[in-house]
Amino acid sequence: MSTQQIQEGPLYMRLAHAIERQISTGALRVGDRLPSIRKLQREQGVSVSTILQAYFWLENRGCIEAKPQSGFYVRLPHPKVPREPEFRRTSPRPTELGMSKFLVEVVNAALAPANVPFAASTLKADLFPNAKLNQLIRRTIQHHPTHSGSYVMPPGLLELRRQVARRSLVVGCSLSPDDLVITCGGMEGLNLALRAVARSGDVIAIEAPTYFGVLQVIESLGMKAIEIPTHPREGMDLDALESAIKRHSVKACLVMPNGHNPLGLVLNDSRKRELVELLTRYEVPAIEDDVYGEITFTDTRPKCLKAFDTKELVITVSSFSKILGGGWRLGWIEAGRYRKQVAELKFINTLASPSLAQSVVAEFIETGGYDRFLRKLRAILSDQLHTIRQSVARYFPEDTRVSNPSGGYSLWIELPKHVDSMQFYRRSLENKIGILPGQIFSASGAFTNFIRLSCGSPLTAEADRALQTLGRLCN
Amino acid sequence: MSTQQIQEGPLYMRLAHAIERQISTGALRVGDRLPSIRKLQREQGVSVSTILQAYFWLENRGCIEAKPQSGFYVRLPHPKVPREPEFRRTSPRPTELGMSKFLVEVVNAALAPANVPFAASTLKADLFPNAKLNQLIRRTIQHHPTHSGSYVMPPGLLELRRQVARRSLVVGCSLSPDDLVITCGGMEGLNLALRAVARSGDVIAIEAPTYFGVLQVIESLGMKAIEIPTHPREGMDLDALESAIKRHSVKACLVMPNGHNPLGLVLNDSRKRELVELLTRYEVPAIEDDVYGEITFTDTRPKCLKAFDTKELVITVSSFSKILGGGWRLGWIEAGRYRKQVAELKFINTLASPSLAQSVVAEFIETGGYDRFLRKLRAILSDQLHTIRQSVARYFPEDTRVSNPSGGYSLWIELPKHVDSMQFYRRSLENKIGILPGQIFSASGAFTNFIRLSCGSPLTAEADRALQTLGRLCN
Repeated sequence: MSTQQIQEGPLYMRLAHAIERQISTGALRVGDRLPSIRKLQREQGVSVSTILQAYFWLENRGCIEAKPQSGFYVRLPHPKVPREPEFRRTSPRPTELGMSKFLVEVVNAALAPANVPFAASTLKADLFPNAKLNQLIRRTIQHHPTHSGSYVMPPGLLELRRQVARRSLVVGCSLSPDDLVITCGGMEGLNLALRAVARSGDVIAIEAPTYFGVLQVIESLGMKAIEIPTHPREGMDLDALESAIKRHSVKACLVMPNGHNPLGLVLNDSRKRELVELLTRYEVPAIEDDVYGEITFTDTRPKCLKAFDTKELVITVSSFSKILGGGWRLGWIEAGRYRKQVAELKFINTLASPSLAQSVVAEFIETGGYDRFLRKLRAILSDQLHTIRQSVARYFPEDTRVSNPSGGYSLWIELPKHVDSMQFYRRSLENKIGILPGQIFSASGAFTNFIRLSCGSPLTAEADRALQTLGRLCN
Repeated sequence: MSTQQIQEGPLYMRLAHAIERQISTGALRVGDRLPSIRKLQREQGVSVSTILQAYFWLENRGCIEAKPQSGFYVRLPHPKVPREPEFRRTSPRPTELGMSKFLVEVVNAALAPANVPFAASTLKADLFPNAKLNQLIRRTIQHHPTHSGSYVMPPGLLELRRQVARRSLVVGCSLSPDDLVITCGGMEGLNLALRAVARSGDVIAIEAPTYFGVLQVIESLGMKAIEIPTHPREGMDLDALESAIKRHSVKACLVMPNGHNPLGLVLNDSRKRELVELLTRYEVPAIEDDVYGEITFTDTRPKCLKAFDTKELVITVSSFSKILGGGWRLGWIEAGRYRKQVAELKFINTLASPSLAQSVVAEFIETGGYDRFLRKLRAILSDQLHTIRQSVARYFPEDTRVSNPSGGYSLWIELPKHVDSMQFYRRSLENKIGILPGQIFSASGAFTNFIRLSCGSPLTAEADRALQTLGRLCN
């Protein structure tokens, strides 16, 4: 995590990360004295209390120590900078999926509340802006006491669609409220998108690794998946994608270009453009899963694939679950030329989305609370990811590789070759630690020595001990 | 509507209905003097104010009139007792559906808020127990401020499943909380049920007429429908069903035995048993849509098909939408031997159901508010149906037939043979009256001279004028 990537978040945190980076690059070594508070204050123009906050934070993490009457000193050898996971080319072929049952059991067992929570792709519930949202609930039910008496029929509450459309400028496109359909979360969006463009037996190109839910949806609809190797920084191997499209009748290509789960990658604009151009050339619709699109640690909110769409072939699926909490059950979909089918399918699948939630979230965005919270959330998550990543590097064997996410909540960890991650997963559960094994992120059961670690909860002392345990289990 | 059917509701209403029945059966004729208030008070043991309320209610409806210094007199000739729609036998064959687009347009146009609301299957929003539910929302967010921060993973909130299970004794079965999966409303339940038992290309036996949403779901999943003629009192023609099962590989049979939409029928216990026995003999799963099961005007809450299920072959789908309002997006499903598949499909379809709504509804049931409201709701709806039915009989041509619902919100009206109901529907829309044409309740486009009239809103003066207009349009 470089300081450039953390433009947001409290000032003291940015300062702390900058110092940590100096330690990790070797600019500061063990025993070096940190700049005095007076010096920093003068040179950086920040307040004494901000500097103290940063130093105490670093001290708490054991990176520096205070020596009485003297100042702060670097304490630890600079943390190992873990390498990122390797990319391997393979030649894709369509796979009939048959893992759903297995998957649900694996995921459910990991999510058990007794476990240290490295499995769930969600924030700790008290990190969400609950107080503000509850205030808006109170206001809404007061002004509109019959709020849930009626269905809000597809495409969904105009006010919420208006707010989503208004914000779409920052994702590089200009959506109209009429273009959007509100859904019961991102998972419903994926269902609707797939049902709009493909039928049972059709082939869908997916990333490898990919979010396991994608595999389940494809399987449940009787469709087949063709896995395209996906590079941790470059995204889908476009040559492999093109050859798959040429050889098989690919009906859609499902990707997660912003805050990829589990890779954490954010595709750059030129790669996004290339991908959309390739798909457009073959008239293959792209389904982009943007549920982590707002949670990226880049300077600006990265563009959606849709920003490069010239033929209305991109379907964007997004959700508020990762930002406001999963219990709201709200997301949206912009389906390009498949807009009408998607609105019809929404009607058929769940008829409508929760009424009160739509009003409350629309109001939260409108009053600016949403954007303020997003800035805070990005800083919190960037910090949590960073901290957990450092601990993994500290506790796991030398040859472990760890992703360096530009977005999302997850670390994608390549364990030493000899480790079987299903066995590792079971051992973790025995130790009351919830993680997910790499296999479930692949249609073909690849990634047998990978695990995903979710970083939605702070690294408590207990969680840190859990990472130590995981490190030991590798050996 | 006989008085025996109205055991619940305020006393004055029961009295009014009893008198109305005497008028309709001819026991009281035009010009007859009603019993004096003193006499009624003495003989029936009810208070003067109750009797006056009943008399004023009848007077408002134009059934009786007060003559100064004399008493109340029957005013109208006894209202026509409309005949019920006819039943015709046909021989069923599988139909590929292709009406979804057409359907959505027809339904959406009818639902436009500017129309007199005879189209929507929902109550007027202020009839729901909003004040009490809002109070529970306030309490829930106070005691549990992070309510929506987490997903409530399938099968859903234990407390809500416990309440549903507790109430299941009255539907003739003893469900366990573990048997239930909470859904985003009844429509999702239908989706999950169909996806659990059948695949693209499979044949599903359905009622004719049936709720149009059923046709849309079946079509969207690439399945075929075989229509079984359904008698307004006896339900599905079991001979036709058996021969359909013998001839075609029927994968499931979808029925609405309680408060059928649009017929309003409640199947009696022996017909329910016969149906389940027939399906069990051929190992065909039954999917029962019970969303109107609580809204019936029979002495007791009618049993579910599940009460007659010996082989775990019945899937019960229900919802709170018709009772608490459509905006909550909450329902449940009990899927017998398909329980595990349904829980998995729920996970894949929408991941979870709204968290806050689950807590609030569980609390509402637990505190008894739900059952109290149901009693009130049944009385209101029975009254609305009765009133609207009488107006239809008054304003529509002689040879119109009108269902006499034992449950649900709908009147199923057979217009004179020469009326084309699509044309009639369009003319109604021109007059800002929302109704639904009979064709959309059939896979084969039958019922071309039928319409459905929803009775979820009171018969205001405007609505009464609308019925007069509809009556005129028939000619």
